[in-house]
Amino acid sequence: MTAATAQEFIIGVDLGGTNIVTGALTPDGARTCGVRSVPTDVASGAEGVVDHIVGAIEATIAATMEETGVGRDAFRGVGIGAPGPLDRERGIVIVAPNLGWRNFPLRDRVQDRVKLPATLDNDANCATLGEWWLGAARGARHVIGLTIGTGIGGGLVIDGRLFHGASDVAGEIGHTTIDMDGRHCKCGNYGCLEAYASGPAIATRAREVLDRDSTASLMPAMVGGDLTRLTAQTVYDAAKAGDRVADEIVRDTARYLGAAVANLLNIFNPDVVVIAGGVTLAGERLFGPLQAEVRRRAFAPAVDAARIVPGILPGTAGVVGAAKAYLEREYK
Amino acid sequence: MTAATAQEFIIGVDLGGTNIVTGALTPDGARTCGVRSVPTDVASGAEGVVDHIVGAIEATIAATMEETGVGRDAFRGVGIGAPGPLDRERGIVIVAPNLGWRNFPLRDRVQDRVKLPATLDNDANCATLGEWWLGAARGARHVIGLTIGTGIGGGLVIDGRLFHGASDVAGEIGHTTIDMDGRHCKCGNYGCLEAYASGPAIATRAREVLDRDSTASLMPAMVGGDLTRLTAQTVYDAAKAGDRVADEIVRDTARYLGAAVANLLNIFNPDVVVIAGGVTLAGERLFGPLQAEVRRRAFAPAVDAARIVPGILPGTAGVVGAAKAYLEREYK
Repeated sequence: MTAATAQEFIIGVDLGGTNIVTGALTPDGARTCGVRSVPTDVASGAEGVVDHIVGAIEATIAATMEETGVGRDAFRGVGIGAPGPLDRERGIVIVAPNLGWRNFPLRDRVQDRVKLPATLDNDANCATLGEWWLGAARGARHVIGLTIGTGIGGGLVIDGRLFHGASDVAGEIGHTTIDMDGRHCKCGNYGCLEAYASGPAIATRAREVLDRDSTASLMPAMVGGDLTRLTAQTVYDAAKAGDRVADEIVRDTARYLGAAVANLLNIFNPDVVVIAGGVTLAGERLFGPLQAEVRRRAFAPAVDAARIVPGILPGTAGVVGAAKAYLEREYK
Repeated sequence: MTAATAQEFIIGVDLGGTNIVTGALTPDGARTCGVRSVPTDVASGAEGVVDHIVGAIEATIAATMEETGVGRDAFRGVGIGAPGPLDRERGIVIVAPNLGWRNFPLRDRVQDRVKLPATLDNDANCATLGEWWLGAARGARHVIGLTIGTGIGGGLVIDGRLFHGASDVAGEIGHTTIDMDGRHCKCGNYGCLEAYASGPAIATRAREVLDRDSTASLMPAMVGGDLTRLTAQTVYDAAKAGDRVADEIVRDTARYLGAAVANLLNIFNPDVVVIAGGVTLAGERLFGPLQAEVRRRAFAPAVDAARIVPGILPGTAGVVGAAKAYLEREYK
């Protein structure tokens, strides 16, 4: 295959449980064009979601052609990031609980419809690769990415390449145990990081505290007295407004994340740890105590070597990384 | 540098807190000659230990010359495995509590004395590389090694090469948290794997149980009623003799190790996990429940991809791997 040139574009697709985001990138990463976001509309079923993906890709292509003046032949391929576990080689999503899919051949369905070669990789891997390529971990050698939202995904870049492990499972950091006999996790296990520090887990912990005593916090009033409406965002907003209960919840989150990040530092000794997702809205209130917990738990030479930073490509890291994952597979 | 040939030998050195083991290997790994073990004699100080290392190397050289008929010029270099953390590039042991060393330039001291080029790497890394090169993980692509003794060391082989991380700390699996608010560890942290599953930790847990009720176990009699004499070996022996208390201690050990190994499977998705050291003496009593715990905690595609096996080079994995680490640095 010939080397990519700057007149070409690769399309990145980030398939989430709520939205599909697409965009077109030049192979050198210098330009990102035609970024689009459409609802995933899970209820429309797998083929319906494919329709939405194809629609978003076509919208990205049209916008990019208009913006840059290139023709349709400038678009060389499609990199897709999707929830895992998946089989990259065969382009199949094995299980995706949030989409209700099992063994769905997503890559080929998209490839056949848009008439462009496609690749499939894990969404959290793509987000990590995106931050490595054009974001907060640019140019680093060994990078760990954590994306914290409804779940906690992770990805590893080793020597500047995505690391997939023996069967494409590598990077499932959300499902590492930090407390053996701890909280039950959706995965069936006990004490996973995700059971403590995902968005819903943060909200659950806040509700538990408020169920005992709601008088000392602003949060009940913020959700009109209906704690079922409380989200992680409520916690961050309340902490920012000086609410001490919310601040404690954020500090606890930092402790849980800090234990997991310390484990990663001692195992993997990265140059950069990128933390992305809603939790970064808590800002220094989170990153300050997180850094302190990591320093308390990990070996000094590992702590000294690693920057722990928020992602700087919110919304597009997955698209950027999916395009880069395509380039890694097709141009090497 | 010219490629190694079969007439040549590389010397491996495994420096432990109790013994120094040396041996000579051909670059193809087909022959291991002149294996020697001498006491480390920590009390003799750093320069005294260097004397013992040099003595063991000279004994290995003499035995290999006698065994194979080669001349002294057949010995090309020395790979040293030593407790970390260390600085591979400068050949310095930064801190080694069991040896009482700080910033000791071990590589150059040995190199100057034996007049052969030398390399320095972490002892647990070397043990993992040894099992990958000639042992239980031979030929696998991604390997994690755990060496369980007085402490718990670890090493990672990625794509058939030792992975060192950004500052040579990678693989410190013994100091990953499995219980955030758990037992205090020698490293200062709480809830490290090492605080539960090292040899001394196993003995401590057994003593704690027997302190409450010693009547239901054979172990007190096995140590003449003096529980301070109880070691992990006592626990394995008692379990083998059908002691139910000892069996529970082994099962708990399997649970702790299982949680840590499951974390590694979810993060790193290896082909093989090699567990070496005294704990393997517990045999299937340990590996059965360990495998079950891993299956309970890790993702199925990661569990299916990974063999979890005992090391098959007890006593020499470190020497074999130290020689291979030399080859990796000097012949690539």
